[in-house]
Order: sequence, then structure tokens, then C-alpha cells
Amino acid sequence: MSGRPENEQSAGSANRSAITVTAPEGTPEVRKGDDLAALLLTALGAEELSDGDVVVVTSKVVSKAEGNVREGTREDALPGETVRVVARRGPTQIVRSRLGLTMAAAGIDASNVEAGHIVLLPLDPDASARTLRATLRDRTGVNVGVVITDTAGRAWRDGQTDIAIGAAGLEVLESFAGQVDAYGNDLVVTAPAVVDEIASAAEISQGKLGARPFAVLRGRADLVREPGDDGPGASALIRPEGSDFFGFGAREAVVRALKGAAADQAPFGAPASVEELAAAVTEVTGIAPIPHGDGLRVDDADPAVVAALAFAHGWRCERDDTNLGATSLLQPMTA
Amino acid sequence: MSGRPENEQSAGSANRSAITVTAPEGTPEVRKGDDLAALLLTALGAEELSDGDVVVVTSKVVSKAEGNVREGTREDALPGETVRVVARRGPTQIVRSRLGLTMAAAGIDASNVEAGHIVLLPLDPDASARTLRATLRDRTGVNVGVVITDTAGRAWRDGQTDIAIGAAGLEVLESFAGQVDAYGNDLVVTAPAVVDEIASAAEISQGKLGARPFAVLRGRADLVREPGDDGPGASALIRPEGSDFFGFGAREAVVRALKGAAADQAPFGAPASVEELAAAVTEVTGIAPIPHGDGLRVDDADPAVVAALAFAHGWRCERDDTNLGATSLLQPMTA
Repeated sequence: MSGRPENEQSAGSANRSAITVTAPEGTPEVRKGDDLAALLLTALGAEELSDGDVVVVTSKVVSKAEGNVREGTREDALPGETVRVVARRGPTQIVRSRLGLTMAAAGIDASNVEAGHIVLLPLDPDASARTLRATLRDRTGVNVGVVITDTAGRAWRDGQTDIAIGAAGLEVLESFAGQVDAYGNDLVVTAPAVVDEIASAAEISQGKLGARPFAVLRGRADLVREPGDDGPGASALIRPEGSDFFGFGAREAVVRALKGAAADQAPFGAPASVEELAAAVTEVTGIAPIPHGDGLRVDDADPAVVAALAFAHGWRCERDDTNLGATSLLQPMTA
Repeated sequence: MSGRPENEQSAGSANRSAITVTAPEGTPEVRKGDDLAALLLTALGAEELSDGDVVVVTSKVVSKAEGNVREGTREDALPGETVRVVARRGPTQIVRSRLGLTMAAAGIDASNVEAGHIVLLPLDPDASARTLRATLRDRTGVNVGVVITDTAGRAWRDGQTDIAIGAAGLEVLESFAGQVDAYGNDLVVTAPAVVDEIASAAEISQGKLGARPFAVLRGRADLVREPGDDGPGASALIRPEGSDFFGFGAREAVVRALKGAAADQAPFGAPASVEELAAAVTEVTGIAPIPHGDGLRVDDADPAVVAALAFAHGWRCERDDTNLGATSLLQPMTA
């Protein structure tokens, strides 16, 4: 694994840990072909980068420099950026984008750009982060981490926070697996998404009015990897298709299960246990399934209902009309 | 609305905006009845609080000081903290808690506490934040904002970030409604959840090993409200029941729609438009509904399927057996 430079906080006061986030003003409008490293270094002026700094830059200026600006509206561009719709209500569409990000309108932005134009997300934000990191190393000799941010809504909570959509040279998850707290309890599942937290810290410093696309976070050099080791990138934080409990809006999940079951599509998501499926069938229909080989048999329940439940649980459902009355046979996907 | 003290950044360099987050070490184990304000001021030592600082404190030490620690396991305590299950797979339960927060195991924590004990979230984190703010004002004369944090998983992305579960004296959403960017575009929907971003910035400084429960963020005095004006609190960020697209896991949404439709329960969520419902019925059944009064009539489709779709879209469904064949009548909730 990556070696890590010594934590800068050891250079500070012994009894506190401090970070600073500086967002320089004075960056001109970014245009296609602009040199982001040069713009950052100019904006920083006398304040030089140091080993272990984390450079944060908004995806908007990365996209502008890379020429990922189009004439048109968000609605025009949305289909090309979308892999599938996650949830839709009225004019709001939350989609899974070509980058795997779940975002309203695929992160297409119509603010801080000429009227009548839109900014798409960078083609490969992790690659953009690696390039900027390497360029800064070439020009200054310092070893920094780079985060590329965008602003995203969340499930369950109002408002947006900035998240990392690209990263280079950084731990993205700070894993405590194998470590214990002061009481000896295992910290098994704790894994702070530090690049997302860095993105949010930068937003607090940058603000949203467009004049400060860069920020430099100092004080967590322990998160920065050695030169040449770019780490997994921010894309490693994206849950793969099918592994998320919330891969579909509640309404869309119902439509998808009923439709998918009727059309005999491949189920979505990892299969539930036979006990979980049996409990769901009993809960909905009042009829307890009967074990049947590796699977279950359900008698006298609406076959469409049973098929939708099977689909939602990642199981296959076959209707058996050899007996009198409706019988459904449920099989695990591996069968 | 609240007046705001002058933004501190004007006191710094004119061409950059900087925040600092300091997390002092040296806080002893917190016990029931401990005085958090005194512990913070002792930990800060010579570094005094200033007007416009934001004091961030983990919910864990707030709970410990308030005596919200129990003997037992997370499993024992979960039912008492849960309003309803949002999603469940295997041993993982994501629930909506009595505070309205959607979190794994209702935010009950078994780390950084004596083995065999658990820490529940504070009873009313916004009230705890208000109390700490008032106490700090009484003792020091300074006007700060207070954020109480917890660590939460997210939909769509791996890892956790710290969020604000309590707040006092702060803007919680920084609204740009009515403002325009440098190009004159409206910033209508942009509303950064600044208290959540502050919580994340603090986590970057505090870390997870328990020795630094406090942090002080300096540089965003513009977000701090006047003394006596505590603002809406962090609970204002929680989406109300029924208004969230992701109020149920995909699997749970299917179970709930099929069961709720069968049991003639009240639908969940705000009603969809008649066009949205008609499109869903057509998509799933292949049968286009026919306008019928304020609602729709669906002939020759599986009534259980139509009822589940109606339920998922916030509509009522009645089966009409006066005609030959299955007919479902769909009515908006207001009818």
C-alpha cells in the first residue's frame, strides 16, 4: 500500500489538530484549453503549495477548460448523459449518469455559464484529477492530492453538499477496520468518505458565486499518497448497480417490479434470502409459502403480486398451472 | 430576518477566503452531568472563542453528558428509537428514527463507549445546541453558532460523512434564491446545506478515535445569527414523511405498495398527476386507462397490479365488478 508523508499536524501545537482551507479569488473566466495548474498557481500568488496539501477544484472549471460546454438546455443534453432514470416527479429527474453518479439532471449545469449554454460534467473526472496532480508536481515539485467537486442533492435531507467526483493521490475512504477505540471496541464499519468531506469543507470556503473555483486544504497530509500513486479515485465511492438499497425511487421501484415481473426481465439487485422472500410474501398476501426444492411454492395468491415480490427480491418466478388454482414457483437466481 | 455580524473574511487578505477548523485534544472522558461548555473552554486553553465562530461537537459527548447511555446492545435499543423501517437487508436496518433522521440502526452507537453499553442520540439535539450556545454566551460574552454532529451513511455512495443533527444560531441552508451569477442566470434551486458541510469539515479535523469531540470553525461569521436568534435548527433539513423520493428502499417500496393496496391503507407520498399515473399503468400493463370523472378507469388489467400502482402514486383504487371482467377505478386522494 501507499506510504504516507508525515502528518503535518505534528508540526503544529501538540494538543490540537487544525486544518485550513483557503479559496483564492481572482481567477478569470475559464475557457477551453486553459491551463488550470497555471490559473491555480497565479491565484495563490505568494502562498505556495506544500507537500501534503489537497487542491480542490470545481468540476465546472475543469469542464470549461476541457471544452465540455454546449449550446442548448439541460433537457436537450440529459438523454446523452443518462444511463437510466432513478426517480422522476414532475419536472425533476434524478438519474444515474454515465459516470455512475446519481444526481438531478445528471449534474448538467446552467449556472455560471453564458445564457443559452450548459456545462456537462468532465468526461473522466478521476483522469482530470490525475492530470492536474501530475502537472502541479512537474511545475512546483510538491506532492499534493487533488479533488474535483460537484454539488449534489441527497436522499432524506434538504439542500445540497459538495461531493468529490474526481480524486487523485488521496485516500478516498479512511478505513478504521482493524483499529479499536479507547475502550477496545472494534471500529469495523466506520469508513469516513474523506474526499467528500474535503469537498464540503472546500465549498464552505469557496461559496457559490463563481469567483473562487479553487481551494487548498492544509493539515491532512496523512491522506495524501506518495508521488506516482494516485489511489482509487473518487469513482471508487460509487456503489455498483444493484448493490444499493436506494437505486430506485420508491415509486419507480414499484413500477419496475410490476413491469419487470410481467415481462420476465432479469431481476434487479442482489437476491434476498429465502427467509426474507417468504416473509414478504406472507406479509403481503397472508399466505405462507411452502418450501419447494431450493425455492418456494405459493398457492392461491395473485400470481402477478407474487411475481412482483419475487422480482423485487432478486428471485425468479414461474407460474405453474398444472394444479387447480394459481400456483407460483419461486427459484433463486442461481437455480 | 436575522441581522448578521460583519463577515470576518473582510478582516483577512482581500483576495482570498479562508476558514480554519481547530479540534483541540485533551478532553477527558465525558460523563453524565458534565459541563460541555467548561470542557470546551478548557480544551481550547489560550485560544479564545471569537464572535462568529462555529462550535462543533459530536453528538456522542452530548449524549454522554445528558446521560443518554444505556446498558445493552444496539438490537435491544433499536425498536425504541425507530419510527419505521426504511430498508432492511440481512443484519442491516436503515430506519427513520424518532428524530426523523434516516440512519442505520437509528444512529445508536457502540463505539467509544464502555463495552456492553450503547450511546443513543440526544433527546433533542437542536435544544442541546441552543443550550450550549447560550451557556457559551453567558460565560464568554461571544456570539457563536453551535453544530451537533453524527456520522451517517448515504444513498448511492460508500462510506459515511458527518452531518448536523442539531444546530443553534446558524443558517442551516444558504439560500441563493433571488441571486444571480456573473452571467445573470438565476440561482434558483441552489441551497447548500452549510451546517452539514460544516459538520464534514469538522470531522476532517477531529478524526474518529474519540479524543477530539470539539472543533471550532472560524471564517464564516456571515452564517452566524445574532444573539438570541437561534434559527430553525438542523431538524429543518429533514424532509417530511411522504415528501422524499427515497423514503423507502426499492424492495420495501414494492412490499409496501402491494400490501398497502391489498389492505386499502392510505397511500404514501404526495399524489402523482393523472398523466404520470396513466403512463405508469400503460407502461406496466400495456393497457391505456380511460378518463373517468376526475380519475381513470382501467379495464381488463390485473386489479392487484393496478391497485399497487395507484397506491405507489398516492391514488385510491376501487375495484368495480358491475361490468364483466376486471375494472379498476382510480381516484385522486381529494375525491
